[in-house]
Amino acid sequence: MDPKTGLTHFDEQGQAIMVDVSGKQETFRTAIATGRIAVNQAVYTAIEQGTARKGDVLGVARVAAIMAAKATSSVIPLCHPLPIAKCSVDFELLPDECAVKATATVKVTGQTGVEMEALHAVSVALLTIYDMCKAIDKRMEIQQIHLDRKSGGKSGEFVR
Amino acid sequence: MDPKTGLTHFDEQGQAIMVDVSGKQETFRTAIATGRIAVNQAVYTAIEQGTARKGDVLGVARVAAIMAAKATSSVIPLCHPLPIAKCSVDFELLPDECAVKATATVKVTGQTGVEMEALHAVSVALLTIYDMCKAIDKRMEIQQIHLDRKSGGKSGEFVR
Amino acid sequence: MDPKTGLTHFDEQGQAIMVDVSGKQETFRTAIATGRIAVNQAVYTAIEQGTARKGDVLGVARVAAIMAAKATSSVIPLCHPLPIAKCSVDFELLPDECAVKATATVKVTGQTGVEMEALHAVSVALLTIYDMCKAIDKRMEIQQIHLDRKSGGKSGEFVR
Amino acid sequence: MDPKTGLTHFDEQGQAIMVDVSGKQETFRTAIATGRIAVNQAVYTAIEQGTARKGDVLGVARVAAIMAAKATSSVIPLCHPLPIAKCSVDFELLPDECAVKATATVKVTGQTGVEMEALHAVSVALLTIYDMCKAIDKRMEIQQIHLDRKSGGKSGEFVR
Amino acid sequence: MDPKTGLTHFDEQGQAIMVDVSGKQETFRTAIATGRIAVNQAVYTAIEQGTARKGDVLGVARVAAIMAAKATSSVIPLCHPLPIAKCSVDFELLPDECAVKATATVKVTGQTGVEMEALHAVSVALLTIYDMCKAIDKRMEIQQIHLDRKSGGKSGEFVR
Amino acid sequence: MDPKTGLTHFDEQGQAIMVDVSGKQETFRTAIATGRIAVNQAVYTAIEQGTARKGDVLGVARVAAIMAAKATSSVIPLCHPLPIAKCSVDFELLPDECAVKATATVKVTGQTGVEMEALHAVSVALLTIYDMCKAIDKRMEIQQIHLDRKSGGKSGEFVR
Repeated sequence: MDPKTGLTHFDEQGQAIMVDVSGKQETFRTAIATGRIAVNQAVYTAIEQGTARKGDVLGVARVAAIMAAKATSSVIPLCHPLPIAKCSVDFELLPDECAVKATATVKVTGQTGVEMEALHAVSVALLTIYDMCKAIDKRMEIQQIHLDRKSGGKSGEFVR
Repeated sequence: MDPKTGLTHFDEQGQAIMVDVSGKQETFRTAIATGRIAVNQAVYTAIEQGTARKGDVLGVARVAAIMAAKATSSVIPLCHPLPIAKCSVDFELLPDECAVKATATVKVTGQTGVEMEALHAVSVALLTIYDMCKAIDKRMEIQQIHLDRKSGGKSGEFVR
Repeated sequence: MDPKTGLTHFDEQGQAIMVDVSGKQETFRTAIATGRIAVNQAVYTAIEQGTARKGDVLGVARVAAIMAAKATSSVIPLCHPLPIAKCSVDFELLPDECAVKATATVKVTGQTGVEMEALHAVSVALLTIYDMCKAIDKRMEIQQIHLDRKSGGKSGEFVR
Repeated sequence: MDPKTGLTHFDEQGQAIMVDVSGKQETFRTAIATGRIAVNQAVYTAIEQGTARKGDVLGVARVAAIMAAKATSSVIPLCHPLPIAKCSVDFELLPDECAVKATATVKVTGQTGVEMEALHAVSVALLTIYDMCKAIDKRMEIQQIHLDRKSGGKSGEFVR
Repeated sequence: MDPKTGLTHFDEQGQAIMVDVSGKQETFRTAIATGRIAVNQAVYTAIEQGTARKGDVLGVARVAAIMAAKATSSVIPLCHPLPIAKCSVDFELLPDECAVKATATVKVTGQTGVEMEALHAVSVALLTIYDMCKAIDKRMEIQQIHLDRKSGGKSGEFVR
Repeated sequence: MDPKTGLTHFDEQGQAIMVDVSGKQETFRTAIATGRIAVNQAVYTAIEQGTARKGDVLGVARVAAIMAAKATSSVIPLCHPLPIAKCSVDFELLPDECAVKATATVKVTGQTGVEMEALHAVSVALLTIYDMCKAIDKRMEIQQIHLDRKSGGKSGEFVR
């Protein structure tokens, strides 16, 4: 950690490093992240209908998100590789807001937490929805991606 | 395209497909996407100072974002592989909002556009900032990821 | 090509090489590959019901297959990277054989064909079905993966 | 697990999930999978001769297969990442059938089994043989990919 | 390009960017890179014998190198994705120096050169030799990795 | 291990295999590797100035190297996947030699060592420096990549 800033991913010379977790215990850790994508009415309807029919935008987004959770340490430079033990992705249609909310839950028994895995999964879920619907609405916006809660490890429980 | 919904990534049986772009001309296409991450004051200061000193959060985020732009078709299921010709990522500090704004500009000469590459780059830039600062602030939120503009291809120019 | 064996992926010293396609014209090429997986009755029913309900084994297998088509040159050592222009994956239930048949169609405008992309997509589609159903039937068998047809390039049309 | 179908990769709403293995013990697990590729006489001879000379089709296929075993969780959507402890790939020439048989043996100490790693390795071995010989025979067929045996974990020993 | 330093991978603010090659013509480009690994006598003998027998260190290294050439833009941050048209890797035993020399030749028709693909292939070839022989000699050293020659593109021919 | 040559990555038939580490204890292991790149004066100055200004060649090289350490088992065929616990990359300017030295330190608690991770990280750090400076000097040379020291595991401590 760089004492001047409190940033853990930098050493005292300010150089980027992977935090040394070799001395840490392997414990059970979990993280839940959410985010949403605001869409227009045509897209909202297409997604809503897709969940009943074959054109399953959310089904494709879910698969992409789970694969992304596993790939997180290949994408985020200073993230540690982790043997993800569980990953589920849920979607909630928000008709009043004409939006879709994504929630990713990730669990591992490891030396460090899975917050980035959960956040990355949510991001990719929403990006996939965008990709599949962009022919209808280029003005979609991904919003409010944040960590809802995490547990395990030295910093213990966190609820936003 | 599925005529009932207008979604292009599904055929008439509603099955997910990669859109057939083999008949399309290779033309010059560009896309610009933006997004931001809202942080607390301690993180804002650490990032701001980092741009002057060695602890360069934004420098690491920029590299991750450019690499992510290139990897987009491996992450978003129905995206086409594209030989990205250019990618740049810019950051803007927003002191009044205690936030950092990321902008990704991508160019290609190809059969389809680079909107997903730009959006994915922005997402990974912001996720990387989150990863590097999460020890100080777990409440950060990624917001307003959207396509600013695109040009080229059949649908031509789009400005949000 | 090694003249003694006729194998193109080896030079005259018999060393493995990527075939030099730099002198070849970029033309339109397509390939269709099929294969099947033989399953027990319980799995067959679960898959069949899944295509009507939310538990969509084939939907997940389709996404995995399309992503695999794009990743082929990273998996098969001497394959050339290709900008896949189109990929679709279809499934057919074969009740008399208690099996599921997968068909992958791939298109590109490039200097070499997409037979491996189509075959790899079929393989991964069937492997994914296996993964999702193996709790019910460990005796499943993947069979008859072959190239159905291809067109384009110097060797022109091939129909099995 | 979805109680209606018995499929473990779906929850009760039928949504695809990575099975939660966080509560499982890390035990020693092994899996052996086999498959074959039927070829014409010219290809059979080229492969047979290659195992004595420099043009080593099977050598290249072996390397591809081992690398594929390690990459399995990046290819099969709901597969768990596993720290593969051992992987070997053997080939057997079957002159009467004019075919080549591939066997992959994989071992790990982990929370879940390595059946998919072994099956994926066999698939890629056979696909690589196809790729290296397709200039001579486009009619080759990959057949009989199945799990031979596995041990370890809650379901214990399985022999086909 | 940053005018103050002449570095092309930085813009005027000194920020890292992928060079914009969208305006460049697609031309035929080639690059040849070499390097060597110095080993002890026991390793030299094992490699030399391997080229005659089944234990083919160089064969495995060759496959790894060709795959690495294709993966270069995923490893080197500001490298452009390129559809590699040809890649071959040759080894030369240097008995007087107790070393092995690797040469990678790469070709493409594209908007930018393949120097990094050739250098990366050589690096991975030598790293693979190290990996396969390190049980016998931990003191091996990789040396003299450089670009031998390149042709094509605006800067034309270069011979070291 | 092949008893005739002492090479561990081959079995008795001389076939390449991943060494079976399933019986080995998980212990703490570390490895340090170094290498250098010789450059001309203009490049040396650009790098030296970059460490003070925004144009940070070494910063980009560091990120690439850390990401490469994590990707090692995907690049080196017979390497085992390892959950890297720590990775740092340091650079030292050598004015008398007009060169830059890179040092990678990697740690893990696992069944096998991290020598290849450290060597691969150094190699990619130097390749990235080459990529970023090649417009100024095509004659750069990567040299002296070797393992400095390792500890842990059955072979214990090694210092070059």
